[in-house]
Amino acid sequence: MKQLVKCLEQVRRVQPLVHHITNYVTVNDCANITLAIGGSPIMADAIEEAPEIAGVSAALVLNMGTLNSRTLESMLAAGKAAGQKGVPVVFDPVGAGASGYRNEAAKALMQAVKPVVVRGNVSEILFLAGQTAKTKGVDASAQDLKDVMQVQALAKGLAGESHCVVAVTGKTDVITDGNSVICVENGTPKLSLLTGTGCMCTSLIGAFCGANPAMPLQATAAALLCMGVCGEIAWENTGEAGNGSFRAALHDAMSKLNRNTLLERGNVYET
Amino acid sequence: MKQLVKCLEQVRRVQPLVHHITNYVTVNDCANITLAIGGSPIMADAIEEAPEIAGVSAALVLNMGTLNSRTLESMLAAGKAAGQKGVPVVFDPVGAGASGYRNEAAKALMQAVKPVVVRGNVSEILFLAGQTAKTKGVDASAQDLKDVMQVQALAKGLAGESHCVVAVTGKTDVITDGNSVICVENGTPKLSLLTGTGCMCTSLIGAFCGANPAMPLQATAAALLCMGVCGEIAWENTGEAGNGSFRAALHDAMSKLNRNTLLERGNVYET
Amino acid sequence: MKQLVKCLEQVRRVQPLVHHITNYVTVNDCANITLAIGGSPIMADAIEEAPEIAGVSAALVLNMGTLNSRTLESMLAAGKAAGQKGVPVVFDPVGAGASGYRNEAAKALMQAVKPVVVRGNVSEILFLAGQTAKTKGVDASAQDLKDVMQVQALAKGLAGESHCVVAVTGKTDVITDGNSVICVENGTPKLSLLTGTGCMCTSLIGAFCGANPAMPLQATAAALLCMGVCGEIAWENTGEAGNGSFRAALHDAMSKLNRNTLLERGNVYET
Repeated sequence: MKQLVKCLEQVRRVQPLVHHITNYVTVNDCANITLAIGGSPIMADAIEEAPEIAGVSAALVLNMGTLNSRTLESMLAAGKAAGQKGVPVVFDPVGAGASGYRNEAAKALMQAVKPVVVRGNVSEILFLAGQTAKTKGVDASAQDLKDVMQVQALAKGLAGESHCVVAVTGKTDVITDGNSVICVENGTPKLSLLTGTGCMCTSLIGAFCGANPAMPLQATAAALLCMGVCGEIAWENTGEAGNGSFRAALHDAMSKLNRNTLLERGNVYET
Repeated sequence: MKQLVKCLEQVRRVQPLVHHITNYVTVNDCANITLAIGGSPIMADAIEEAPEIAGVSAALVLNMGTLNSRTLESMLAAGKAAGQKGVPVVFDPVGAGASGYRNEAAKALMQAVKPVVVRGNVSEILFLAGQTAKTKGVDASAQDLKDVMQVQALAKGLAGESHCVVAVTGKTDVITDGNSVICVENGTPKLSLLTGTGCMCTSLIGAFCGANPAMPLQATAAALLCMGVCGEIAWENTGEAGNGSFRAALHDAMSKLNRNTLLERGNVYET
Repeated sequence: MKQLVKCLEQVRRVQPLVHHITNYVTVNDCANITLAIGGSPIMADAIEEAPEIAGVSAALVLNMGTLNSRTLESMLAAGKAAGQKGVPVVFDPVGAGASGYRNEAAKALMQAVKPVVVRGNVSEILFLAGQTAKTKGVDASAQDLKDVMQVQALAKGLAGESHCVVAVTGKTDVITDGNSVICVENGTPKLSLLTGTGCMCTSLIGAFCGANPAMPLQATAAALLCMGVCGEIAWENTGEAGNGSFRAALHDAMSKLNRNTLLERGNVYET
């Protein structure tokens, strides 16, 4: 826990520039959550500038929520530029499994870009791991929430094979580099009532990896811990009022988050 | 009313996957309102995947708010794929009448896609019906709110000619399949203070038609009833505080909506 | 101050149609803030219709936040069409200085479109004025907030050279046509906690110039005064609750704003 808390303090100190090539559905939430945690978001997807901007950023987030041929090309180019400059790339394979095109794109990005972290729900990670999963749109279905041990095995396999950190978000968030596994038990299933909570997790991981590039495993766990804790706080404070209040409260909690709240509420263990 | 209430319960039970090809202005609200009512939104506009995703969805929403040549092509292809699979298509001719390009696109989509439901304000529906209307941007103007009988005649004409359900939203929402007409008297003119309330209506219609494909007339009326009732509740609860609070309250109300609230507040009649 | 207050009343009376070609990150906030102040937003970026729509609008806002080759072409064409019809163009060079592509685009737009107003933070305006600035992403950095006299000299130089009104937003907002300078001392640095507050300023300027085309200097100052005053009110009312509440409160304040509030709180001087 102490390491994770330090990761947050480092984000607040460094204010990492987090370049996003992301979808237009949740992009505003991604920008605002990056600001709320203490980062500085920049969204730029033109092939003419994305590699240049990626190269001077602290981290690059690639989110394939509303992918098209133009933005896929930019993701590939920006991802490579980031790799050459040592800028960590965080990849969110939104909806992997939902269409042949998205499947091919996800594989191409994994191969060409070699992300430092991949975050998805269990369907998406199952797909990347080469196992079949019924993806219902872009949201995780209830059936996805299987036994935590199975999820750990799945994530470790993909992490080992792809030489990256894999984060599977769900009831228990599982984060692994193929060797160590960190589990985060915070959060609330109510987060799935809002669009973009997965995308926001990935943006937070971008901010945390940008500020803590030497420890992507801990940085990723810290980011998911923050989302889990803030989800709990937001639900407790206003969830019963409905989705609009819950959403505002989530952004409220993220902007007010501090080390003490993490230490009090954090429910994290390593396996 | 009982039928409309059942439509809502069916949405909550089925959790229909609602594929959107829509504009980037209000897409986040469309996703969140779809979740709030109990559906599952997916937004995907690449020609490489839109037809495939449309074919496995419960409904397809085509919204031409920020149309361009790329997304128009995707709308045409996805619309045709949906038609072949019997997936209901809901069309929102945002801003029809505002430019020659948009006019041609609206006509092309009506002809090629044959939507099950078309929803617009009276200017947009006037345009589709081939009558001249002065469209001021994408928002309905006060002059649009004419006599309800005229709106009914207009909607019935277009519905009969196009073999679809036509919904004209305004002070009184008019929904017709060319024979029956359902009028919804709920709502508040204050909804026009927020961007996207028309788009959200169309997304709700998508969710309702996805869950109730055999009864598009009732499903469409039920969707507009939900928006009307939630608009009233949101305005009563927080409208005086201003637009930001009103917007959050609208999402709150939609996520908390239940059969009793509809039965208490619903002001619906058939003609 | 009286002139600025009249500019607001004119916006409320005229309800100007404000055409935007803008980024997908903050576009929803731009639409909602335009409605909140009393304008009517339309967002349309297809080359096939953007010039036509610009030509019948009260103002055109060009915001290069997520520029690409397709939307740049539309901006150039719409900007020229607006110029031919006497429709004021307001330009927001988001992130000028952040990439070579963006720099070239900003210069091309300045030359080809000849905007009536340019609004940026001090980094962006420094770049347009041909001076080097370290731009950190798209947000103004603390180092940007230099001496007000320097900012005034910079803005006057660019305004004189480009024959337009230049607005530099920051701790003190500086607005000048190259001769007169208006300074607005309202606002709060907390506005930088939210994405899109700069973009929203530009949209407000669009609404104000659309309703007050003969006095772009005063219209621009009035728009920034409104944002400053509403930022103060929003922060006082809910800022401590966190970013989500602050954001809603900003939209609340804008929709409730009236002449008395401006007169009570306005802190404006000419130099």
